Amino acid sequence: MLDDDLPPDPIGAALLRGDVLAELCPSRAILRQTTTRWAVLCLVALRRGEMRFSELRRGIGGISERMLARTLQDLAGHGLVTRTSHPVVPPHVDYALTPLGHDLAERVEALTRWIELNLARFPPASRGEEG
Amino acid sequence: MLDDDLPPDPIGAALLRGDVLAELCPSRAILRQTTTRWAVLCLVALRRGEMRFSELRRGIGGISERMLARTLQDLAGHGLVTRTSHPVVPPHVDYALTPLGHDLAERVEALTRWIELNLARFPPASRGEEG
Repeated sequence: MLDDDLPPDPIGAALLRGDVLAELCPSRAILRQTTTRWAVLCLVALRRGEMRFSELRRGIGGISERMLARTLQDLAGHGLVTRTSHPVVPPHVDYALTPLGHDLAERVEALTRWIELNLARFPPASRGEEG
Repeated sequence: MLDDDLPPDPIGAALLRGDVLAELCPSRAILRQTTTRWAVLCLVALRRGEMRFSELRRGIGGISERMLARTLQDLAGHGLVTRTSHPVVPPHVDYALTPLGHDLAERVEALTRWIELNLARFPPASRGEEG
């Protein structure tokens, strides 16, 4: 186990150590809800730093305004993203990863980066090419 | 970037370097298809080694026979899992990760392990508890 995998409160966390293979473990709900199609892409995009809604929407190809708003709301609910309103004219809102969101996004991006770098190893059909 | 993130054919892979934030990049289809709810759990379970269908079914809480069969078929189609039939009585079939599947499963498990260890940092509602 890497040092940075250790939680800040090892005793409390040990009491709550999860097991995603157990049907009723809360870790499974967290895994499912925080790694939806769009949540993964939002987390990866926000690794670059704080962003406005419009920047995020441009940065994540194919996401609709509605899905982005909903995904950001869900991620905020899980304590992964903060929303900062600036009282300026015109008003704008910045989104950023929390420390928890940063830690999760790091693991998520390790996975997406591996896929990006290893595309050529997948069968042509997996890449959407004719076999 | 870690050394083990380097693909075996860096030139070929560089030509195909993906970007999950790009709508039409094949990496996004691979990400979506290989990290479905059940695919993630199958990959994690198979990290322990080759397993029979019945062992996998017992090992992944809540998975139905039908979903497990379909998930294993999908993972085999993506070159991540092999299926070995043993001509014995009664017949049995073993499932194992391919080298590609092993590499992907390693990243997937780094993510699930982090969630398991950091459960206590998520808001109670994310863990399915009342806030």
